Amino acid sequence: MINRAAVLTRPSEIVLEERPVPEPGPRDVLVEVSAVGVCGSDVHYYEHGRIGSHVVRAPLVLGHESAGRVVATGDAVAKHAVGDRVTLEPGVPCGRCRECRAGRYNLCPEVVFFATPPVDGAFANYVTIHEDFAFALPDGLSDEAGALMEPLSVGIWACRKAGMSAGDRVLVTGAGPIGLLAMQVALAFGATQVEISDVSEPRLELARRTGATRALKAGEVPAEADALIECSGNSAALQAGIRALRPAGTAVIVGMGPGETAEIPLALVQNRELWLTGTFRYANTYPTAIALAASGRVDLEAIITGHYPLEETERALRAGLEDPANVKAVVHP
Amino acid sequence: MINRAAVLTRPSEIVLEERPVPEPGPRDVLVEVSAVGVCGSDVHYYEHGRIGSHVVRAPLVLGHESAGRVVATGDAVAKHAVGDRVTLEPGVPCGRCRECRAGRYNLCPEVVFFATPPVDGAFANYVTIHEDFAFALPDGLSDEAGALMEPLSVGIWACRKAGMSAGDRVLVTGAGPIGLLAMQVALAFGATQVEISDVSEPRLELARRTGATRALKAGEVPAEADALIECSGNSAALQAGIRALRPAGTAVIVGMGPGETAEIPLALVQNRELWLTGTFRYANTYPTAIALAASGRVDLEAIITGHYPLEETERALRAGLEDPANVKAVVHP
Amino acid sequence: MINRAAVLTRPSEIVLEERPVPEPGPRDVLVEVSAVGVCGSDVHYYEHGRIGSHVVRAPLVLGHESAGRVVATGDAVAKHAVGDRVTLEPGVPCGRCRECRAGRYNLCPEVVFFATPPVDGAFANYVTIHEDFAFALPDGLSDEAGALMEPLSVGIWACRKAGMSAGDRVLVTGAGPIGLLAMQVALAFGATQVEISDVSEPRLELARRTGATRALKAGEVPAEADALIECSGNSAALQAGIRALRPAGTAVIVGMGPGETAEIPLALVQNRELWLTGTFRYANTYPTAIALAASGRVDLEAIITGHYPLEETERALRAGLEDPANVKAVVHP
Amino acid sequence: MINRAAVLTRPSEIVLEERPVPEPGPRDVLVEVSAVGVCGSDVHYYEHGRIGSHVVRAPLVLGHESAGRVVATGDAVAKHAVGDRVTLEPGVPCGRCRECRAGRYNLCPEVVFFATPPVDGAFANYVTIHEDFAFALPDGLSDEAGALMEPLSVGIWACRKAGMSAGDRVLVTGAGPIGLLAMQVALAFGATQVEISDVSEPRLELARRTGATRALKAGEVPAEADALIECSGNSAALQAGIRALRPAGTAVIVGMGPGETAEIPLALVQNRELWLTGTFRYANTYPTAIALAASGRVDLEAIITGHYPLEETERALRAGLEDPANVKAVVHP
Repeated sequence: MINRAAVLTRPSEIVLEERPVPEPGPRDVLVEVSAVGVCGSDVHYYEHGRIGSHVVRAPLVLGHESAGRVVATGDAVAKHAVGDRVTLEPGVPCGRCRECRAGRYNLCPEVVFFATPPVDGAFANYVTIHEDFAFALPDGLSDEAGALMEPLSVGIWACRKAGMSAGDRVLVTGAGPIGLLAMQVALAFGATQVEISDVSEPRLELARRTGATRALKAGEVPAEADALIECSGNSAALQAGIRALRPAGTAVIVGMGPGETAEIPLALVQNRELWLTGTFRYANTYPTAIALAASGRVDLEAIITGHYPLEETERALRAGLEDPANVKAVVHP
Repeated sequence: MINRAAVLTRPSEIVLEERPVPEPGPRDVLVEVSAVGVCGSDVHYYEHGRIGSHVVRAPLVLGHESAGRVVATGDAVAKHAVGDRVTLEPGVPCGRCRECRAGRYNLCPEVVFFATPPVDGAFANYVTIHEDFAFALPDGLSDEAGALMEPLSVGIWACRKAGMSAGDRVLVTGAGPIGLLAMQVALAFGATQVEISDVSEPRLELARRTGATRALKAGEVPAEADALIECSGNSAALQAGIRALRPAGTAVIVGMGPGETAEIPLALVQNRELWLTGTFRYANTYPTAIALAASGRVDLEAIITGHYPLEETERALRAGLEDPANVKAVVHP
Repeated sequence: MINRAAVLTRPSEIVLEERPVPEPGPRDVLVEVSAVGVCGSDVHYYEHGRIGSHVVRAPLVLGHESAGRVVATGDAVAKHAVGDRVTLEPGVPCGRCRECRAGRYNLCPEVVFFATPPVDGAFANYVTIHEDFAFALPDGLSDEAGALMEPLSVGIWACRKAGMSAGDRVLVTGAGPIGLLAMQVALAFGATQVEISDVSEPRLELARRTGATRALKAGEVPAEADALIECSGNSAALQAGIRALRPAGTAVIVGMGPGETAEIPLALVQNRELWLTGTFRYANTYPTAIALAASGRVDLEAIITGHYPLEETERALRAGLEDPANVKAVVHP
Repeated sequence: MINRAAVLTRPSEIVLEERPVPEPGPRDVLVEVSAVGVCGSDVHYYEHGRIGSHVVRAPLVLGHESAGRVVATGDAVAKHAVGDRVTLEPGVPCGRCRECRAGRYNLCPEVVFFATPPVDGAFANYVTIHEDFAFALPDGLSDEAGALMEPLSVGIWACRKAGMSAGDRVLVTGAGPIGLLAMQVALAFGATQVEISDVSEPRLELARRTGATRALKAGEVPAEADALIECSGNSAALQAGIRALRPAGTAVIVGMGPGETAEIPLALVQNRELWLTGTFRYANTYPTAIALAASGRVDLEAIITGHYPLEETERALRAGLEDPANVKAVVHP
């Protein structure tokens, strides 16, 4: 077994290296990776070598949206067998701290998360993970779909935070991969009015094809909404989105803006008793993600716009930078 | 204008009578009724002259699942105009009591509800109702669909009480009109495993056709479920349904059983920290019901098994008694 | 019966006028007012003639924190009798709109609210109100306490929005009347760490006397908190308060700031999945307010710093402007 | 160091044995036990050798309400040092399964829980536990109070399940140790009407002394309540308690009844949309328990009715059987 990995050696440089095949611990599975989605955070690390306080100080393997096949198991593994196709939840929390105990394991300060320095990610032939964070992939789902359970989880988490329910009216701002998936998730939650806005016409066209009840050019006035899912990181979109909310509506802020602070229409938040929150990753979403994809409620392949071999990981990372119509690249190690 | 009404004069006797056309109050609309669904409670009043403490002491017009067309409006009506097609939420609460103020207006002790003694219902040519309890019916929806917003509301309310969300696994016990609609609503809420049980094969067949992921003969063992929606009123079904729930799952009891009390597996409720509740009518469901039907998420006509003119209201009431395959009769005044 | 009223004729001018005694409608009670608290909003109208889009265009009677004695009842009144001591919930909502039906009657767009233009308030000998918005005052509670059920309600509403529970750690920013009452309410909800901050030493001293576990000079670093109740309207306090929240904590913003928008630490809101909301008045709080005061869980008289006859309403309005140690003035018509 | 333990060798036989001092794992603390409360489940194991499906098949050390002093720590322990006084949360869950991840770790099927066969408990000189399940005991709290954080947690969990909030009206049925503590917790949550019922006058007297707003002889009619905390295991009390609930009220069933099933007034549950649930142990309660006790909101020593050395563990176990006035025995190893 040879384990090649696409390594970020410094900003804007990816080098293919041979690494030892990782040894699974007693409750780990060793997974041969077959598909890895490129996430905006991968691109950000590639370009800037950091995201906020997370700084890449040593060569790092990127990639945290992954699926593959179990090829070996630790001695105490009970849930998976060699040969199983699995999708990987990329963050393993401590399971003991206050956040973990409260069911908020996404906020565990000791989480070990793929492709977050100094933990390597999945742009490689092999990775290991605790068996409880590998989930069996049903036959009807492709490896690519398996990889995209991760951004789908982001969308599910946002819709859950919004308290979304059938018949709701939802506004999604930003039609990148997360916005497009959040939009599909909103439809899967039974939302009957799902508007999405963006500056890019090709992205809006993709939104229309995948179910948006209305696609708006940024700046167009949205209809009243029960929930806002902000996925653009854009301050004007955030403010306009909040203004569209009905009394007691909820804004869930997923997109990262450029700064630490942002201006919000606070008097409106007060007068209408709006709720605002943000999301950080997700918790308890993988079973839902798999069920939604397996039942055809969401179409993950619809947002894939490029496939790349491991050797072309750098091209995959650059695809979205070069053309916003390149929504989601998938690397196949 | 002539106002004929099908009147329950005593148990098992429906007489067609001519009644004065009701006069709308300042904020009422006068509606020419075009479709009225027959509910199990109508049938129960017809057969027994009472439901629990609600006793029919004077001639009563039955029917509370209704739609029609506005033909006159009170002086202060602002929301509807003559000619509008509307569906009617049949209970008008006081709007002031503790339950109303808390948003639980379905529990208002002073509610005025169609076809609940001594308030007349909608098996008639004309009814009046407060404008806020008439809801515009979109063009794409038939009058029959409009009438069935009422039982659809029962299903929506049950799914809300269950805290249902996308990817959930749901068991519906009882495939009568309420169970069949609750099942469709569960699918509209994004549930991906929706099992339904009944004793009647034709009803199970209808369930399969309208989306059940599995239809079980009563007694078959269901899969583990996040939520139970009990719609049969049968004690064995209730107990088996509760046993199917995952830890911390929720049982919502919609079907009325024969007695005041029932036996439940209490040790299991404790050891698994299950939640049990029941539903009484519904609140804040009509906009959702209309949105789900208008967007095609639920198919109301699929459960209609018979159409009757007002003259044949009694036949409509007896249809379900004679054959359980007669799921839902609609009367057209 | 003579009905004198303290009328705001233009900014900074209060004139005592004789007005007709109002006639109670069929479900109204006529109340002889005995105590009326001065609220910051009264002072704001007095000084500026407006609050945001609410503009005083005609002479207006201020005052919405009131209690008194029933002296006459409408024909259909069932809940109160002449002689009853009552506290008045000053906003009567429509009871029919979407917000009312959902239990959010404080957001009713058609609410009729004391001392909000063009509706007169309670700085007068007599007012009328729907019987359901008058609440019996237990014997052990003074009229002044009765008047202060209104600001107490604001504190209760804020603590409910925060999801506060026993053992919680709470930060209140701003030790004006609302902050001081919210602090007492937090203690009544079982919070065991209740810190409060202000710029005024006399207010902090009052906070210490009424139960604060720690009183901070503005700028001092608070301990980690489960909930923030922002009552200062100050942007720096808001930001510092948000930074003090634990992951998944909640900020409830009660104080009105000077502008329409405000800057918040959005990256923190996202990374810690904080919740932010604002309050607008309150709903379903009066029974709780009375129960808390009657059981001695909160001490309303502790924050009263001045008593004034109706003739000195203007002095009462100016008291807080002149010295921040004047926390709460009460007018006795 | 000598480790003596009081061992249940067969039903109704406790033998004092010398056991090896347990060796702490890398993240465990070794605790010298100073106080252990006797729980009804200990008594049940002592009398019957089983509780439901939990059967004592080998000699078992009982006792799971414990506090003591850290005397040694594993290599990786970071939170406690030798000499620290601690109270022990007696169940250590897996931290990985569906229930743990969802924050419902009390429902973890792989939990290791003191004094639940085959896991030994704390009627011994020494025990070990994972450092995250030992909690520092503030100076002001005695070791006995530390031991009683466990039954206090049961009360906190019940009140949380009830959604209890300030101003609520609560009925507790059963004034044994759990009922008496649940009653105190309800008061600490701000409940202003807290009624408690029992058959034993001495227990009711103790309830009155510790804050009950009314103590009822079983059979007396309680006032309307927002929440029922059923702690008697008695079917008549459960039914009467449910009947006392207001519409949409909540019944939390803590007491174990004699059988697997129980009869409930189901029609009432439906017509009033009541909520019913049960509790199984607790989760995330220890910090709250300690905060409530340390701040004086609950008085744990008030319910202690006997102290025993380890040699008299059997007498401690028999105390409550012999006289219901013996509410809570504490063993001091």
